[in-house]
Amino acid sequence: MQYPEPISKLIDSYMKLPGIGSKTATRLAFYTIDMQEDDVTEFAQSLISAKRDLSYCSICGNITESDPCMICADKSRDNSKVVVVEQPKDVMSLERMNEYHGLYHVLHGVLSPIEGKGPEDINIASLLRRLQKNEAIKEVIIATNATPEGEATAMYIARLVKPANIKVTRLAHGLAVGSDIEYADEMTLFKAIEGRQEI
Amino acid sequence: MQYPEPISKLIDSYMKLPGIGSKTATRLAFYTIDMQEDDVTEFAQSLISAKRDLSYCSICGNITESDPCMICADKSRDNSKVVVVEQPKDVMSLERMNEYHGLYHVLHGVLSPIEGKGPEDINIASLLRRLQKNEAIKEVIIATNATPEGEATAMYIARLVKPANIKVTRLAHGLAVGSDIEYADEMTLFKAIEGRQEI
Repeated sequence: MQYPEPISKLIDSYMKLPGIGSKTATRLAFYTIDMQEDDVTEFAQSLISAKRDLSYCSICGNITESDPCMICADKSRDNSKVVVVEQPKDVMSLERMNEYHGLYHVLHGVLSPIEGKGPEDINIASLLRRLQKNEAIKEVIIATNATPEGEATAMYIARLVKPANIKVTRLAHGLAVGSDIEYADEMTLFKAIEGRQEI
Repeated sequence: MQYPEPISKLIDSYMKLPGIGSKTATRLAFYTIDMQEDDVTEFAQSLISAKRDLSYCSICGNITESDPCMICADKSRDNSKVVVVEQPKDVMSLERMNEYHGLYHVLHGVLSPIEGKGPEDINIASLLRRLQKNEAIKEVIIATNATPEGEATAMYIARLVKPANIKVTRLAHGLAVGSDIEYADEMTLFKAIEGRQEI
């Protein structure tokens, strides 16, 4: 015996999401049936709307409702700096800091030979075109994650951008604010020593 | 700065699901944007359809598209036995076994003083009415989970049903098939010894 069709279809849909297997999908599907009707309708509408109304900015690759995105369209921002990030989520994290007022470029991934991801699979070509076209950009700040893939991507981009006489920088590595030296890993401590600053 | 509205609404909707916090919801929302349009549409439709087309069987409380449900409506089933379970999912698990051909009754929960769930919060009254009305039922097999709440609920139902001269049984406790004695907990071993059978 199978579940009634509406619920087995819903389970299938939940299972298409990352990290959700058949047990969790079943639990979520049964939970959905007991949810308020309004909440379910809103959920369905926001799925459709997120897919239909959002696209990627043709300049920076960030997620946006309008093209170009709010950041690229904002003339008051400092257009001499571009922060290069892996994902749209990273733009949000940096914006929450409220200290950076330059532009962004979203790669949508990192170089990863293991996953077969080469330079043509991420937004590197569009970054180079952007730097060629826009002479105002004086500095590229690479803010890929501090993972081996993120580091390799940073090195790769730096090698391509430097010959154009644009300053290329990388976010500092070191101790997280509020963290204990006791619990820091060796690599982080090494980077913190290496990058020590005079006070 | 906030996420564009369509995505922040979708994140809010995902966060209403159990066990999904803001980080996971954000990850799922971004994943949704990169999904095939067909898959997203289907997901939205199955949400609506699961909520709209499914209800609970007025006899047994199982989830169903038609009332009474397929099992209650099936005249070929053995109507002398009723298995009492906690959730519709449990009906499916028992049906997959393909060895039981009687009826079911879904409690939609267990007695749980900690969560403030008393007998009036689960489908016990409808079970008793069903037993009174239907004289064919000769045995009630209680298949609540082997948790303290499941056990307490089983005891409670047994006390109510027994005076009506209906046989009340409980699923056997013991070693799971394929399991090692070495890894069985003390309580399970105790129940396995207690319920030992002659071979």
